[in-house]
Amino acid sequence: MSGPRVEGIDAVLSPRSVAIVGASADPARIGGRPIRYYKQAGFAGALYPINPNRAEIQGLKAYPSLADIPDGLDCVVVAVPPELALPALEQAAAKGARGAVIFTANYAEAGPEGVLRQQELVASARAKGMRLLGPNCLGVYNAASGHAANFGSFLEGERAPDAPIGIIGQSGAYASYIHVLLRKRGLDAARWLATGNEADITVADAIAHMADDDGVKVIAAFLEGVRDGPAFLDALEMARAAGKPVVLLKVGRSETGADAARSHTGAMAGDDQVFDAVVRQMGGYRARTTEELIDVVEALIRRGPVAGNRLGVLTISGGAGVLMADAAEAVGLELPYMPEATQARLKAENPLGSFSNPVDFTAQAMNDLSLVGRALRAILEDGDVDAVAGFFMTWIASPVMGERLQAVIAEAMQGYEDRTIALAVSAPDEVLAAYRAKGIIVNADPSRVVVTLGALAWIGHALKKPKRSAIDFSAAPRLTGEERSDATAKAFLAQAGLKALPEEVVRTPEEVADVAARLGVPVALKVVSPDIVRKSEVGGVLLHVAPEAAAARARAMVAAVAAARPRAEIEGVLVAPMAGWGGELVMTAQMDELFGPVVTVGLGGPFVELHQDVAFRAAPIDETEALAMIDGLRGRPLLDRLFDRPFADVEAAAKALAALSRVAAANAEHMEAIEIHPLLVRASDAVMLDVLITYHDPQWHI
Amino acid sequence: MSGPRVEGIDAVLSPRSVAIVGASADPARIGGRPIRYYKQAGFAGALYPINPNRAEIQGLKAYPSLADIPDGLDCVVVAVPPELALPALEQAAAKGARGAVIFTANYAEAGPEGVLRQQELVASARAKGMRLLGPNCLGVYNAASGHAANFGSFLEGERAPDAPIGIIGQSGAYASYIHVLLRKRGLDAARWLATGNEADITVADAIAHMADDDGVKVIAAFLEGVRDGPAFLDALEMARAAGKPVVLLKVGRSETGADAARSHTGAMAGDDQVFDAVVRQMGGYRARTTEELIDVVEALIRRGPVAGNRLGVLTISGGAGVLMADAAEAVGLELPYMPEATQARLKAENPLGSFSNPVDFTAQAMNDLSLVGRALRAILEDGDVDAVAGFFMTWIASPVMGERLQAVIAEAMQGYEDRTIALAVSAPDEVLAAYRAKGIIVNADPSRVVVTLGALAWIGHALKKPKRSAIDFSAAPRLTGEERSDATAKAFLAQAGLKALPEEVVRTPEEVADVAARLGVPVALKVVSPDIVRKSEVGGVLLHVAPEAAAARARAMVAAVAAARPRAEIEGVLVAPMAGWGGELVMTAQMDELFGPVVTVGLGGPFVELHQDVAFRAAPIDETEALAMIDGLRGRPLLDRLFDRPFADVEAAAKALAALSRVAAANAEHMEAIEIHPLLVRASDAVMLDVLITYHDPQWHI
Repeated sequence: MSGPRVEGIDAVLSPRSVAIVGASADPARIGGRPIRYYKQAGFAGALYPINPNRAEIQGLKAYPSLADIPDGLDCVVVAVPPELALPALEQAAAKGARGAVIFTANYAEAGPEGVLRQQELVASARAKGMRLLGPNCLGVYNAASGHAANFGSFLEGERAPDAPIGIIGQSGAYASYIHVLLRKRGLDAARWLATGNEADITVADAIAHMADDDGVKVIAAFLEGVRDGPAFLDALEMARAAGKPVVLLKVGRSETGADAARSHTGAMAGDDQVFDAVVRQMGGYRARTTEELIDVVEALIRRGPVAGNRLGVLTISGGAGVLMADAAEAVGLELPYMPEATQARLKAENPLGSFSNPVDFTAQAMNDLSLVGRALRAILEDGDVDAVAGFFMTWIASPVMGERLQAVIAEAMQGYEDRTIALAVSAPDEVLAAYRAKGIIVNADPSRVVVTLGALAWIGHALKKPKRSAIDFSAAPRLTGEERSDATAKAFLAQAGLKALPEEVVRTPEEVADVAARLGVPVALKVVSPDIVRKSEVGGVLLHVAPEAAAARARAMVAAVAAARPRAEIEGVLVAPMAGWGGELVMTAQMDELFGPVVTVGLGGPFVELHQDVAFRAAPIDETEALAMIDGLRGRPLLDRLFDRPFADVEAAAKALAALSRVAAANAEHMEAIEIHPLLVRASDAVMLDVLITYHDPQWHI
Repeated sequence: MSGPRVEGIDAVLSPRSVAIVGASADPARIGGRPIRYYKQAGFAGALYPINPNRAEIQGLKAYPSLADIPDGLDCVVVAVPPELALPALEQAAAKGARGAVIFTANYAEAGPEGVLRQQELVASARAKGMRLLGPNCLGVYNAASGHAANFGSFLEGERAPDAPIGIIGQSGAYASYIHVLLRKRGLDAARWLATGNEADITVADAIAHMADDDGVKVIAAFLEGVRDGPAFLDALEMARAAGKPVVLLKVGRSETGADAARSHTGAMAGDDQVFDAVVRQMGGYRARTTEELIDVVEALIRRGPVAGNRLGVLTISGGAGVLMADAAEAVGLELPYMPEATQARLKAENPLGSFSNPVDFTAQAMNDLSLVGRALRAILEDGDVDAVAGFFMTWIASPVMGERLQAVIAEAMQGYEDRTIALAVSAPDEVLAAYRAKGIIVNADPSRVVVTLGALAWIGHALKKPKRSAIDFSAAPRLTGEERSDATAKAFLAQAGLKALPEEVVRTPEEVADVAARLGVPVALKVVSPDIVRKSEVGGVLLHVAPEAAAARARAMVAAVAAARPRAEIEGVLVAPMAGWGGELVMTAQMDELFGPVVTVGLGGPFVELHQDVAFRAAPIDETEALAMIDGLRGRPLLDRLFDRPFADVEAAAKALAALSRVAAANAEHMEAIEIHPLLVRASDAVMLDVLITYHDPQWHI
């Protein structure tokens, strides 16, 4: 759990000399394909086919062994059976190679013996200071140098112009498919990497490396699971800090899917809900479908993120306008109303149109294209929008109409080139290509047009968020292993700034009476015992006790608890004022098995549990993020509505949550979970009512 | 609210003679386009251009007026300004026309004067026994006869082969777009209809008509709102009874969207959640996007519904298999596990594959295509699946590979031709077309492949459901206007078979004591008053009262209520045994403003309200449907889980809900709402605890 490792990846991704062990004269075989691809790609470096049986392979001089290579070596590509792979690695290291691409399969994916073989391989690579891609991987491709250590068929066929896209896939097959689909959009990814068994280089390492690679502006990743959660999150953060969007397709969302993913890669699928939340937190955009990934990556390359979430809709058909308004709401885009005066002006020249936003310029525009230009200009000038989505049906299907409309759009956009335009239109590919080349997003499905704009706006927002690494948790208190009672746990969190009620732990009925009298209000009494986790289950909690009755009832309570749990050590009785009105939140800090310390928050009560209305984030978070977590709960209105008294102090709750997250980050080593159950959010503060801390460290277990 | 009207629509959809008033010699103008389209389509009937200024139009003899037509007339097409439209309608009627297609705009969509003009038009048409399409509509098209009373540009350009698809749109523009997108899939819809302002013929009428039209097998509809909810539901039911799937794209889901829809069509958007529920109930399939509608309609035409929801996934890449498993779960498809023996057999011949389902035959299949055939055969023979989705990446991109794979698939499917195959593959259109022609579903996006199969399975299930019209509610009790108290309301529902507690209304403390003593268990006491709706708010409800204390506490309660509501008539006190353990459901029957009587059910409690965990159906429903409603609630586990005692009798609850729905259907005229709040679902029955009935009929208002 030490962050992504980028050192040395250049030897795999940008080597100047490459040897292929198991080189084949047959350009269709696994050992032959890379040679063909290197030649096609015009690799500028030195390429050494290694084959003991041939002097020449595909027109290149071949070498009997790695030892025979005349010069030094940066990278070795291994396309021989497992028993020959390890020696090849070692010989390459001896030649100075610091990178290895292992096509060879039959390692960890093939059972216990394979796992051992893989461990040997990695140990050897680490000992020699080599970085290793694979094993069981399809390879790597770098368009800048023509480095094509790859046997994927996606490198065949006609290429499209290079685009600064980095594709990373745990599945080489699916990463190939993504490459092919992007090529259909006229974009050939400049970098491509399949991590296979991820014995060394992981998706996280690759993302982190691309964050620093000037040839990559947008990263597209296909994931089945994540090996090292915190490193993965750090990598996302690095890409975000470099201003590079990461668009992810992560499968294993469903139970069946997660099972299949586990059996397939051995990587942890983890809890999909947590994955979703923390990836969003780090600014990673998770596409729901392959097409969405392609749409969004293309739009990012051709146009870039959108500055805000205000959308104007222009349409030739009212029905399509409604459809796009629906889609906009679903992805968090707003449609601001056009000012009345502007509406009136447009209505005067086009009486059957409707101009509030959606702006319906009607089929009239087919007769007078300038109506489109004026409507677009008006929405840019007065509509307060960051992007415009238009529905143009089929009437730009001809290149002539297409050119005319492009001219009208370009004229209307003068001075507003920072706004993004996207069109829903069905037309031949060559007509669409002309729009795309101008940075206009086009798609036949109006919903997809809006989803793409929603993604661009979300990414634009995510790239602007403050850096998470700036959150300082060094001042957070450290667990000592002694926070085993509600009282000590509260005292611990109080050091982090969370608030408890003015409560006292005492040991005699007389002291109970004293404290209750001093508080002067109805009190709650709770047995204090490190041995009893759920006190109310054994009668160890009494509520609404009048001060004058406190001593007698405390005595009876302790007797009852002692009878129920004769072996429990009872340390005393906690006396606290009744907490009064408020909304209840349940907050926890937990060690997620994949991502490390995370915080969660949800409304109190069994129904909410059932509805899974819980927000997650990787710890630490700041107060803005904490507030967003609470505000994002479906049950959020309960904090306003259920109680007669003034509004619950949600900001105090957010402060508490952020503080809890810093405690979680500072105590990842020892903590299992910290549960505040509930935090009572009152009119002007938020107080912990019950706190339970459990430890991960086995030495600290009770 | 009298069901869809189909009589006479043939005169609009299949006339043998048509006159076009406002016929133009310019084939690009609104009055000229239909003539061009009729000629292109080879209309077999008589076509009469009407134009006082020309003797000939586009090569056809023109007539100065409708009166000059030599023979009788079936249908008139009106393409003249509003002031000439009404006279044209009347002259056409005099010539025997019983159908009219009104292109002319400036009617209800254009404000109050237009509304009046439209009313005049409809009144005249009704008086003459004519059916009328529009006004403000793009027209109608019938490929069978070449009837092309239409000015939509979608009729231009190269046609595809006719397919038995009926397209109906409230928006002519969007219905055109759907036509164009289907044509891109090689399917030209045989019927096309835009309802425009729906002054007479509505979407419901059109669906009902197509349900009986042999030229239509699948109906695709684009809706912004519905004018007559019950007629619309009846139309869906008629299509379902005829075995014809209806695939809907209904916009106005969001608030912005619904506003825009209202301003655009004047039709009611209604509550989208209710719309969604009742359309599903009637077997209508609601597509979420335009592309989904196109995918599903194409698959229905080329292949038809799928018999069940068990899916096999075949893949060349583990990652894609996981992706498809995820998509399957999201649309309700199951992936049954392959029998171990079959898995072992396949593993023996392909050791790196994985065969539980998803079946990953790996890239090995690129070398040995027979692996695909054997895996497919195995999953058909042993996998217990209704459909198979395959991921084949790009490796059938060449026609040669495509043909070889088609042969392998065809061989494997021998004897299993009733199973549906769908492939995720990227290939040139001509390769894909060959698969499509064989009834194999193809799409580049694996998610869309699975969504389409999910839709086919859902539709297959919906077509098999029993007919709703068979539910007999004639025996349901009828409201009299006297059901104003909890007691009388319960007595009313008891006639329908719902159960109440053995409770009695009495008038003296002594009688309270007698009843309580006879019940012999703790009782609930409730004030009975027609003037007090929420009794607990005024202290009119006491719970857990011991029999011996009942008289005194009843006396005090009545005094307190009388003090709180001095003007309320107090009829007595209801004495009931405490109801005991159970889960609480809230059931209502309500008059939806759009769809008439609907029933709802949800779990009790404020959180559930917040989470909108409520199911809707149009009344009446049978017990199976009622059970499905309850089982579909997210909070459903609460009925199992929250209570220590045996399982709540959910079947009794479903019986009660079905009975309530029959009451709702029988009392649509007078009822505003019937609320059972709650129905207590106990271990072996379900009892009404509180019932409130309100009336719609103003004469019955208090």
